[in-house]
Amino acid sequence: MSNLELIIGNKNYSTWSLRPWFFLKNLDVEFKEKLVFLFEDDTNDILSPYFSNDKVPVLLDDDLQIWDTLAIIEYVADKFPEKQGWPIDAKARAIARSTAAEMHSSFFALRNALPMNLRKHFPDYPINDDVKADIQRIYALWDYCRQNATVKGPWLMGEFSGVDAMYAPVVMRLQGYDVKLSGFAAEYAEHVSSNKFMQEWVAAGKQETQIIALDEV
Amino acid sequence: MSNLELIIGNKNYSTWSLRPWFFLKNLDVEFKEKLVFLFEDDTNDILSPYFSNDKVPVLLDDDLQIWDTLAIIEYVADKFPEKQGWPIDAKARAIARSTAAEMHSSFFALRNALPMNLRKHFPDYPINDDVKADIQRIYALWDYCRQNATVKGPWLMGEFSGVDAMYAPVVMRLQGYDVKLSGFAAEYAEHVSSNKFMQEWVAAGKQETQIIALDEV
Ligand SMILES: N[C@@H](CCC(=O)N[C@@H](CS)C(=O)NCC(=O)O)C(=O)O
Ligand SMILES: N[C@@H](CCC(=O)N[C@@H](CS)C(=O)NCC(=O)O)C(=O)O
Repeated sequence: MSNLELIIGNKNYSTWSLRPWFFLKNLDVEFKEKLVFLFEDDTNDILSPYFSNDKVPVLLDDDLQIWDTLAIIEYVADKFPEKQGWPIDAKARAIARSTAAEMHSSFFALRNALPMNLRKHFPDYPINDDVKADIQRIYALWDYCRQNATVKGPWLMGEFSGVDAMYAPVVMRLQGYDVKLSGFAAEYAEHVSSNKFMQEWVAAGKQETQIIALDEV
Repeated sequence: MSNLELIIGNKNYSTWSLRPWFFLKNLDVEFKEKLVFLFEDDTNDILSPYFSNDKVPVLLDDDLQIWDTLAIIEYVADKFPEKQGWPIDAKARAIARSTAAEMHSSFFALRNALPMNLRKHFPDYPINDDVKADIQRIYALWDYCRQNATVKGPWLMGEFSGVDAMYAPVVMRLQGYDVKLSGFAAEYAEHVSSNKFMQEWVAAGKQETQIIALDEV
């Protein structure tokens, strides 16, 4: 039995919340969730007990707080080694972590221009060159993971791992802004978006009515 | 015997290079280093064999490439468990990793306004409010690490770990731009900057003559 509780933001918009949620769900780790709507009058009051600088996600394990996506993934992978949150093979693990870390610190053009907004779909949305460069790099990363996978399966490293959690919101952005995919990227995006937990998240996001102006294009 | 080789950028400027270098040195892990001067005419040609999108650092272990600071730290910690690259205590480790990950994805005001430049010292450099907020958050993080350390010692979690590597360049920025420190932050900054490996890095950086215009204030 674990006492894990995940503090998340709006399912419609919050990409950083989706990542650890998707990770925990796909690893079949039990947790409670607490949803805090972001950028509301009371948001900071609700988040101030946590040491996350008013950001989500935060994972609570009794009195321990873990306040960043990557740190949450590492914590869960360490706590439940039998769940294999990262590939077992050391090289595959290093490549998965490099790819995950690159998501954590990069792709600002994509993140700014195509904010996740699950309620909406934008047919033929115009994509500028900086965003195109980000997307090309993401395809290259996905292919590199795939080439270096040591087990078979539909996920980036064959079996599900932390790197899939990191790119799950990217898939939802690409689909939402109607970016045409082909080859492995198309297959992978289909696999992620049809995942039952992703569908559960998306359905909940679509029910939300709160608007974050910053995330509306 | 290991075949590790770390590809780094200019010691004077490259904060992301300093982090894994400082980590490997303080853990007493043997490695070769290869310095590539950034933003020169031939930089991209030299970096193009690596899968890092023309960025440093890259750690090579025979034919394996690891191309991000955090992923390098995790790889080294996994490969040499006896070196204890992260705190052994699970809670302390989670806090160290959260603090490290926050550095990886945040503090853009500080990073933009106060680029590391070891050759220079700027007495009474003006600090804007956004940078001040970043610095306050960094102090809070350092104190939080300290409060949650389960072993004694001068580093953030008592003993040296990955989180110290992540903040080592921050210390050099604070000192370079003459930010007045007090309390634990002052002690910690003194400890980091007087570390023998840091002094070795700084001495080498000061010998460099290459200029990166972007990093000159
Ligand atoms: N690097 C952090 C990013 C967290 C983050 O930026 N979260 C956003 C939501 S997606 C947030 O809380 N924004 C609210 C705010 O900045 O006030 C992580 O990986 O967890
Ligand atoms: N998130 C990366 C950041 C790497 C990075 O931005 N490196 C800088 C040097 S400090 C670089 O290579 N810049 C050259 C360029 O962008 O062309 C990491 O943690 O390793």
